[in-house]
Amino acid sequence: MGDITVAPIPDGFEPTDWALGFTRHLGGLYLHRDKPILAALIRAEHLNPVGIAHGGFLASLADCAFGVAFKHYLDTAIPPVTVNLNVDYLGAVREGQWVEAHVEIHKVGRSIANAGVQLRVGEKVVLRASGIFTVWKGEVPQA
Amino acid sequence: MGDITVAPIPDGFEPTDWALGFTRHLGGLYLHRDKPILAALIRAEHLNPVGIAHGGFLASLADCAFGVAFKHYLDTAIPPVTVNLNVDYLGAVREGQWVEAHVEIHKVGRSIANAGVQLRVGEKVVLRASGIFTVWKGEVPQA
Amino acid sequence: MGDITVAPIPDGFEPTDWALGFTRHLGGLYLHRDKPILAALIRAEHLNPVGIAHGGFLASLADCAFGVAFKHYLDTAIPPVTVNLNVDYLGAVREGQWVEAHVEIHKVGRSIANAGVQLRVGEKVVLRASGIFTVWKGEVPQA
Amino acid sequence: MGDITVAPIPDGFEPTDWALGFTRHLGGLYLHRDKPILAALIRAEHLNPVGIAHGGFLASLADCAFGVAFKHYLDTAIPPVTVNLNVDYLGAVREGQWVEAHVEIHKVGRSIANAGVQLRVGEKVVLRASGIFTVWKGEVPQA
Repeated sequence: MGDITVAPIPDGFEPTDWALGFTRHLGGLYLHRDKPILAALIRAEHLNPVGIAHGGFLASLADCAFGVAFKHYLDTAIPPVTVNLNVDYLGAVREGQWVEAHVEIHKVGRSIANAGVQLRVGEKVVLRASGIFTVWKGEVPQA
Repeated sequence: MGDITVAPIPDGFEPTDWALGFTRHLGGLYLHRDKPILAALIRAEHLNPVGIAHGGFLASLADCAFGVAFKHYLDTAIPPVTVNLNVDYLGAVREGQWVEAHVEIHKVGRSIANAGVQLRVGEKVVLRASGIFTVWKGEVPQA
Repeated sequence: MGDITVAPIPDGFEPTDWALGFTRHLGGLYLHRDKPILAALIRAEHLNPVGIAHGGFLASLADCAFGVAFKHYLDTAIPPVTVNLNVDYLGAVREGQWVEAHVEIHKVGRSIANAGVQLRVGEKVVLRASGIFTVWKGEVPQA
Repeated sequence: MGDITVAPIPDGFEPTDWALGFTRHLGGLYLHRDKPILAALIRAEHLNPVGIAHGGFLASLADCAFGVAFKHYLDTAIPPVTVNLNVDYLGAVREGQWVEAHVEIHKVGRSIANAGVQLRVGEKVVLRASGIFTVWKGEVPQA
């Protein structure tokens, strides 16, 4: 493993400081200071048995990125919850690589919202996903 | 949070002893001794901001469960890799709950395999997903 | 084309008598007298350039079958509209074959419903799809 | 129905002259003379019971558009067959409207290809879909 090249963190990204929960637990996540772009620096704990980023990690990154984008665009603390997540895996992501999640919100309707995301390593699109979301109608825990 | 009830571990399940990577990092995973059933005991680090299991965690559990099932049914060390994962979220899962992933393999073709999975809390189906898989043609790292 | 064997229509199925629109235009559709099962007898006009049933026809059959099932189970004239349709094609269907669509409704929530469908030729599952639906809030044309 | 406004056919589009099968049967399809863009002029036989274009018709249009694009970009008579089609319905399409299908091919790999499509009425995106495709390995019927 001595040959892992670790990508530099691009300007404008800072480690996430989420206090709790799965998004913190994932590790290696970064958020852009001004833009709703979530990114990850791939670590050993994100890999699957063949040594590339696990499909579950990348799906999680995509899902978290949707949350980041909805909070930004809808100006809400609690983003809509995911009803459907459809993920196409297009290319392998390796340890040390920098992956950015670029979200496009397609529709915000009365009960349903739609969005798409691309995960990119440099210019290469390694994953595309689309999601369907609905407003959370349950309780929100106090901090 | 003093009111979390932690479900008992059903007979036949043991904590996973995976040495490395994302499946180990997820935490709280259990595997049945004889059957290809992956399960999770939901912990605080699996939750999203509204206090239910994160969609990314559940998608990861589904994806890992596909791997477990393919290894079992195809009798292979390296399961096929995920090409597409389509996840429908049907119900919330809470801290302390026991979630089992029941996989059904639909097709194993020359280049493509298809499978479906249900995540269940007791009798309740909380997530359904389908996946498309293809044989991994890259290198496999030595242990 | 002299060698097409046309499957017999199983007991209980009758040609649909829908008056109008795309479901009528598709052609070759049959509905069970008592059960919410839509079926098709594959004709030349359902085929794609390689001579098997077109993916669009089978997706249409799946989508229509969801409508039939929702009308039956929810006892409503206007079934919920499709928000997402995810289709996995598992096997080819040929001219003259009899295809039945078996729907399972997974959830009927306040704003969203989920269902899955299998298309079967005999015992063989040739297509699996899942759908997400929402109540239609627009106008309904008068007959 | 006296109030249906029929959109004009934009420059460059011609009625498809496909000889046979489902794509011909659908009706109302147009192909651009130079670009791989399939389009439809919505007719009464494309509608569902609430009087908007049927989800099955739009899914069929999306699937046919993938075929058109693959034939163009891969310069092949037989496009790869659809393994998975995931469709998000974003807006209603009405009789007389002109719908264009704009495909983007994401990846052409050894065994699997990926593409996405937008259906647009004017500037409005009414449907987004992604597809997974594989090379057809069966027989091809002679004309």
